[in-house]
Amino acid sequence: MPLIGHDLIPGLWPSASALLATTAAGAEAETYAKALAVAVTLTTVMIFVAAQFFGEIAVRIGLPEVLGELVAGFAIGVSGAHFLMLGNGGPVAESAVAIVQLISASDTTTIQSIFAGPVKILVDEYAAIGVGVLLFKIGLEADLKELIKVGPQAASVAFAGVLLPLVAGFWGLTAIFHLPTIPALFAAAALTATSIGITSRIMQDMGVLNTKEGQIILGAAVLDDILGIAILAVAIGVADNGSVELRSIVGIIFSAILFVVGAIVLNKLFGPRYINFLDKLKNRYSLLIGAIVFLSLMSMVARTIGLEDILGCFAAGIILGDTPATKRLEAACEPLVALFATVFFVTIGAKTDLTVMNLADPESRMGLVIALFLTVVAIVGKVAAGYFLVTKDPVDRLAIGTGMVPRGEVGLVFAGLGAATGALSGAINVAIVLMVIATTFVAPPMLRWVFARKSRRSGLTS
Amino acid sequence: MPLIGHDLIPGLWPSASALLATTAAGAEAETYAKALAVAVTLTTVMIFVAAQFFGEIAVRIGLPEVLGELVAGFAIGVSGAHFLMLGNGGPVAESAVAIVQLISASDTTTIQSIFAGPVKILVDEYAAIGVGVLLFKIGLEADLKELIKVGPQAASVAFAGVLLPLVAGFWGLTAIFHLPTIPALFAAAALTATSIGITSRIMQDMGVLNTKEGQIILGAAVLDDILGIAILAVAIGVADNGSVELRSIVGIIFSAILFVVGAIVLNKLFGPRYINFLDKLKNRYSLLIGAIVFLSLMSMVARTIGLEDILGCFAAGIILGDTPATKRLEAACEPLVALFATVFFVTIGAKTDLTVMNLADPESRMGLVIALFLTVVAIVGKVAAGYFLVTKDPVDRLAIGTGMVPRGEVGLVFAGLGAATGALSGAINVAIVLMVIATTFVAPPMLRWVFARKSRRSGLTS
Repeated sequence: MPLIGHDLIPGLWPSASALLATTAAGAEAETYAKALAVAVTLTTVMIFVAAQFFGEIAVRIGLPEVLGELVAGFAIGVSGAHFLMLGNGGPVAESAVAIVQLISASDTTTIQSIFAGPVKILVDEYAAIGVGVLLFKIGLEADLKELIKVGPQAASVAFAGVLLPLVAGFWGLTAIFHLPTIPALFAAAALTATSIGITSRIMQDMGVLNTKEGQIILGAAVLDDILGIAILAVAIGVADNGSVELRSIVGIIFSAILFVVGAIVLNKLFGPRYINFLDKLKNRYSLLIGAIVFLSLMSMVARTIGLEDILGCFAAGIILGDTPATKRLEAACEPLVALFATVFFVTIGAKTDLTVMNLADPESRMGLVIALFLTVVAIVGKVAAGYFLVTKDPVDRLAIGTGMVPRGEVGLVFAGLGAATGALSGAINVAIVLMVIATTFVAPPMLRWVFARKSRRSGLTS
Repeated sequence: MPLIGHDLIPGLWPSASALLATTAAGAEAETYAKALAVAVTLTTVMIFVAAQFFGEIAVRIGLPEVLGELVAGFAIGVSGAHFLMLGNGGPVAESAVAIVQLISASDTTTIQSIFAGPVKILVDEYAAIGVGVLLFKIGLEADLKELIKVGPQAASVAFAGVLLPLVAGFWGLTAIFHLPTIPALFAAAALTATSIGITSRIMQDMGVLNTKEGQIILGAAVLDDILGIAILAVAIGVADNGSVELRSIVGIIFSAILFVVGAIVLNKLFGPRYINFLDKLKNRYSLLIGAIVFLSLMSMVARTIGLEDILGCFAAGIILGDTPATKRLEAACEPLVALFATVFFVTIGAKTDLTVMNLADPESRMGLVIALFLTVVAIVGKVAAGYFLVTKDPVDRLAIGTGMVPRGEVGLVFAGLGAATGALSGAINVAIVLMVIATTFVAPPMLRWVFARKSRRSGLTS
């Protein structure tokens, strides 16, 4: 930018021809800017149109929408049309490049570099915002009081529901399939956390959320989310250090526990005061902006002490939850989750290379066998956990275990982060995604059957 | 990502040491990813904290919040702490780099390149999302029916209020200050559009929005927004072509008019059907996602036919406005505007180099004289426009003219886009920003005085 002395005094103004030359020199930069803008817009439109299309189909055939978003990712990503390529499987499809070229008149090499560089950075960041705000919102919605009330019952289910699939999965993957420790730990960890979003939405649709079983499922789902994220932190820490060191495990577990316990304590001491402070500010969106600042800082704190960003986002949600303003904050987060978490789920699908699963190839069939094993452990482990429920009340243990089956978001987070650390090979990553898809697909009909059976029985006994 | 054959069969698994080596090789990439995440988080936090802090001060002393956001940009940008550097004025401040280094353990050169590259791309994109969604929402809120009702009265004020400052500004800048055509056109164009957001908020606070004067001001502000954006398109087109060609002006004006008229026609023919279609989809955020897709496509259409992106976003808002679902869509857009438009206003402040205005330097004083000239033309032009009102009703023409004074968003968009095209030198850009600040600062007290005088008079005559 020229100094004022060269511009402002009439005699010193650049002549018209000099200005023209500047414009001509800037033409290339402008073509680049145009190509970038078109590439970003095109990518965004493709992500949202595909997510809406497959999400709509999923909902219409009675499946959770998140499955449609994953399938949308398969369709436009490395497994499908190659429109959304995020670091593996080569360049973006020629047709996408051609559209950008048509509007921006840039060359194909530049456009490919735009897709591989800035567009990838932006989409990855949108996905990070999405999963961050999603886990923040799950934290906000985690009703700590209700959890304490359902108390030991939910805790017993949650612990059993985390330990059974974790131990059975880890044992099977190392003993039967001879996987090394780290991938086995990641894959087993991905079996632990129930999707609170999916299970509560299914139960709400079925009108059973307010039954005793529904409340215990919800409480246990919240608790195994916390446990699951702590285990995720352990798994990532272990993967980062390259080996399983007891001291580092203890350190990470300690940090994670301290972090979660700290969040629960801060929920009483700090959360209401911070929310109150934000609510007194004159900007009516101070609540949202202040919350985003806080979750950003918490993600940085988590990162600094060696935990994952998303644990920070989740803890931020726990801390700011359960105040009079929480509902408003949840509502303000919803559009952000709707847009950015959609990008997150689509990118998980887009990065998943399903073509490595080739049925003609005996090694690929082995990958499918692992996926099948993970799915069986995931379902049996959670259903069995229902029978570990410690209670004297007459509750349907099968219904509770079944309600814990869908993995969804957190399982996908495990898959995505596991792949990002480099600990998970493509095939294991695909096996985890297939497990998540399978558990999320089977849960709605299973739950429908179990609760129908339960109401038939109540009909007979009452 | 290794192929499945090398991973899945037990004998072919990489040994533990090989896995360790992979992790070590990935360590550098991970340090980079960590530095990037911390730099992005830090920048976001700084933008929001500064915006909240200065926005709060602005509101508490009775000024529009957007002024606080501009000042926040001055404070953290090139005029201030150098925390947010977006392409001019050198590297990011050492202290910001040190914070990133503390957490990520990356080297300073890498961190500087992260701030200059990915962080700049992300912040620029957030700002683009912000101004896009803001203009979409202004389009949504533009009540076409109401505008047609207040009709010729608002139109007469709007046209006079656009032409007077445009002509007087352009004449003065070229004849008195001897500026070349393009910068003079840009600076004069920036004088045209009233800030509908600011003026309606001021009138709402004063309880005069529903007076006849308030309604005419609102209608005229909507109309001169449309005219202003059309003039902006002309100015940018002219700057891009490097000279004032009658044919290109006619072409651009024709496109802009066709675009806006097309939007009004599509508001009847297409908007309600598209909204109705989106509302039938099962995802409760289909409305928002579908609107984002539509505004993205419209911004691409605008770009393709040679207009600016934001005109596409505004037209998308006009088209989807005035349906039963519009209020819900506005509400869903609000959190996005709250977050991303804040980034936009802060970046405008951050990019504005106020240090070029050095009072000890006679040339700088010349720049301040231009700012003063622009401000006087901006205020006198709009106040005078009130007296061009064609009506037989007894209305307060001074109040109407005064209500048109605040420029705000659209004026800042002109400054930002003008600087982006390279047509505006730093000093002229700063002069425009100072004019926007001055008009937005003086409008609230002026309006308060005018409406107080009016009610005193009514008190005497009634």
